[in-house]
Amino acid sequence: MVNTLFLPELREMLEAHDTQGLSEFCSAIHPAGTAEFMAGLTAAEAWQVLLHADLATRVEIFAYFEHPFQVEVLHSQDRRQMAELISAISSDDRVDMLRGVEADAAAEILSLVPSKERRDILRLQAYPEGTAGAVMTTDVACLSESWTVKQALDRLLERGEEFETIYYLYIVDDLQRLRGLVSARKLVSCIGKPQARLGDIMETELVTVDADEDQEEVARLVARYDLLAIPVVDDQHRMLGIITYDDIIDVLQDEATEDAYRSAAVAPLKHGYLDTPLLTLSWKRGIWLCILFFASAVTAIALCRYEEQIAQWQWLVFFLPLITSCGGNSGNQAATLVITGLARDDIQLAQWWLVVRRELVVGAILGLVLGICGITLAPLLRPEVLGLPEALVIPITLVSVVMCGTLLGSTLPLVFHRLGLDPALMSNPFVAGLVDILGILIYMNVAGWLLS
Amino acid sequence: MVNTLFLPELREMLEAHDTQGLSEFCSAIHPAGTAEFMAGLTAAEAWQVLLHADLATRVEIFAYFEHPFQVEVLHSQDRRQMAELISAISSDDRVDMLRGVEADAAAEILSLVPSKERRDILRLQAYPEGTAGAVMTTDVACLSESWTVKQALDRLLERGEEFETIYYLYIVDDLQRLRGLVSARKLVSCIGKPQARLGDIMETELVTVDADEDQEEVARLVARYDLLAIPVVDDQHRMLGIITYDDIIDVLQDEATEDAYRSAAVAPLKHGYLDTPLLTLSWKRGIWLCILFFASAVTAIALCRYEEQIAQWQWLVFFLPLITSCGGNSGNQAATLVITGLARDDIQLAQWWLVVRRELVVGAILGLVLGICGITLAPLLRPEVLGLPEALVIPITLVSVVMCGTLLGSTLPLVFHRLGLDPALMSNPFVAGLVDILGILIYMNVAGWLLS
Repeated sequence: MVNTLFLPELREMLEAHDTQGLSEFCSAIHPAGTAEFMAGLTAAEAWQVLLHADLATRVEIFAYFEHPFQVEVLHSQDRRQMAELISAISSDDRVDMLRGVEADAAAEILSLVPSKERRDILRLQAYPEGTAGAVMTTDVACLSESWTVKQALDRLLERGEEFETIYYLYIVDDLQRLRGLVSARKLVSCIGKPQARLGDIMETELVTVDADEDQEEVARLVARYDLLAIPVVDDQHRMLGIITYDDIIDVLQDEATEDAYRSAAVAPLKHGYLDTPLLTLSWKRGIWLCILFFASAVTAIALCRYEEQIAQWQWLVFFLPLITSCGGNSGNQAATLVITGLARDDIQLAQWWLVVRRELVVGAILGLVLGICGITLAPLLRPEVLGLPEALVIPITLVSVVMCGTLLGSTLPLVFHRLGLDPALMSNPFVAGLVDILGILIYMNVAGWLLS
Repeated sequence: MVNTLFLPELREMLEAHDTQGLSEFCSAIHPAGTAEFMAGLTAAEAWQVLLHADLATRVEIFAYFEHPFQVEVLHSQDRRQMAELISAISSDDRVDMLRGVEADAAAEILSLVPSKERRDILRLQAYPEGTAGAVMTTDVACLSESWTVKQALDRLLERGEEFETIYYLYIVDDLQRLRGLVSARKLVSCIGKPQARLGDIMETELVTVDADEDQEEVARLVARYDLLAIPVVDDQHRMLGIITYDDIIDVLQDEATEDAYRSAAVAPLKHGYLDTPLLTLSWKRGIWLCILFFASAVTAIALCRYEEQIAQWQWLVFFLPLITSCGGNSGNQAATLVITGLARDDIQLAQWWLVVRRELVVGAILGLVLGICGITLAPLLRPEVLGLPEALVIPITLVSVVMCGTLLGSTLPLVFHRLGLDPALMSNPFVAGLVDILGILIYMNVAGWLLS
């Protein structure tokens, strides 16, 4: 989001070295709003403005910048100041920010970061993107079972600002193994019993995830159990970090975008549409267009085989795009329903036969409806289709093609899911392409059988 | 999610009236898990099991049932018990649950609900689905500015269970107008100053939404500001309720599903795929297939116009599906990128010229790449396409069709957005259908111009 309303004023204040004005600008509104008003400044200007905010506010505003702009600032500004900034940013965010920075610059900044923070960054960077480990934060309040309510409250008062969420306190044993959690709600309700031990008031039935779990699955768990945060553990159940609800909201938005791209056969983009260079954009689309081109070339091969038939009944050609588009559309509908059903746990793999049966019935109904549309429309356009058997070619083809579309569209994602692949790989263009080929074969065979 | 592991045991316990076993079952694990194990029971059996849980747990488990099953239980079981259940459920959830219940049954249940709760339900029901008002809950902690930290803590200890979230306390004036908020974090940090007034420690820069705001916009705000909850206010800034992060997560999941359906031209379904009756499913898909059928019929009309040309150069037909699919695919890619860009605020309407310029360049690049693929492939399939000018028909058409696809795919969602319509209405099948028609016209004209 870009808001250029304050840009001239900001530049004036910078030129006039208006310290008071700039400090007020940094603290007056929500950091997200401040960041918005600053979009449009150069990296150097933005940094000059940020220097007028205290470190905590500076970090917050910086976190709301667009990712490419963060990278630009990190690249171009004073390394020591950048190291100070990075040290103060929450552990999951800074790993994301550093992802785009060139290796040399990142190494220089990291060398200036305190060693504890540096080790933390390096550890988090080791998890592949899209896993729980890469999304989690290590700024988490871990306390021992033997602590009392009073000790826990004191600790929160003292260090609460550092922790990503203080609404859940995690209880671990001496080996950092997760034992339970105490919610802030519970802690507050125990204010009257300051000597109660955390081990006695903690909940022990916890939902946890492994560090290499897919982020989409993590989002599903958090949504299902309405959690504020979910702990990430290793294979020995040792606490590694937590993923909070706001990161889950980001994951859901990213996954929705990725699914939308996939359904249109666009390879995922790292940044927004306008921030992606034209050649990258062309590559991410071109690679799939080429694959689909060669898949679609099979239609040309198929049609060549029916050369004589097409020469004899030329009117067949006129309805060709209509028939392939009906097949493709019905296939896309079925594929989308099954893919979203699988993603939302509405459909289990064991229910495949139920899905196929439903799609056969729905396909038959839809095919009949479109067949009726076809038998009405075709003779209006081409009078030679009025008599028998010509009149039957279009409707019979439509029924078969639509049923073939719903069947293929529903089974392919199920098969992909069974093979452990992402069912969303069966994107709309792929289903449409396959149904195109089958549609042509069905059309030509129905025509050949009825007319000769 | 259905898990039939415990079903036989549950039924045995019911038959044996094993009160202790059933109570344990209800309280042993997370309510979401309990609800999962109960899926498969009849409504009457499920209710018998739930009667062994205390009211709070019963409400929680019930909230995790699938919606159609909730409706079935509400319909079929004792009205007085249902009224007690409804009274205890959080205010946003119960309105959703009652949505599916027949008017008579709902009225009977409502008449047994205490009048304060009944008024609340009726008020929330008045907001149209998909607005902030329909998603919000009224179980919110609203306190006065003049209260002290100690009073606030006492109130939370006493009534905290009732409130949807105690992590934010909202401060209102005598007319219920929202003045600020105090986070639980802030409140805990002020335990040492029990006499401090809430008015002095509250934050006053609040992000709020109107009750008639679209839920998608609400989700966007919550994601942008990383909020735990967002207050809903009326036009006088009076506090109506809040929307919490877990409802936002549900909204995001629902909107992602709706967008996926829309991109495949399926009208939104109320329930999961397997819970939707076959005729409803056929209707939701058939209506769009019919519309797309008649749009696609234009391709047949267009082709009829070029009857003689097709008779003369029959090989043109063989490449027809290939060309329309290239155009459709590139159009879908552009449309999807622009629709998601608009939804994520990456693209502003004012930047339309930037988008169009990018798509022209990307379209030219992609068109050239596919054109080269085409000039290589076509002569392999049909030797008559080897010489000039025949060899130029396919590549020139491909460049034009792909550019036309990217241009149409990117501008149509922008135009829809400008007109105040949902850009996602320009779903993939529509863009593909339109590009099909234009593709045929381009192909036939290029061929006519080069060959004659």
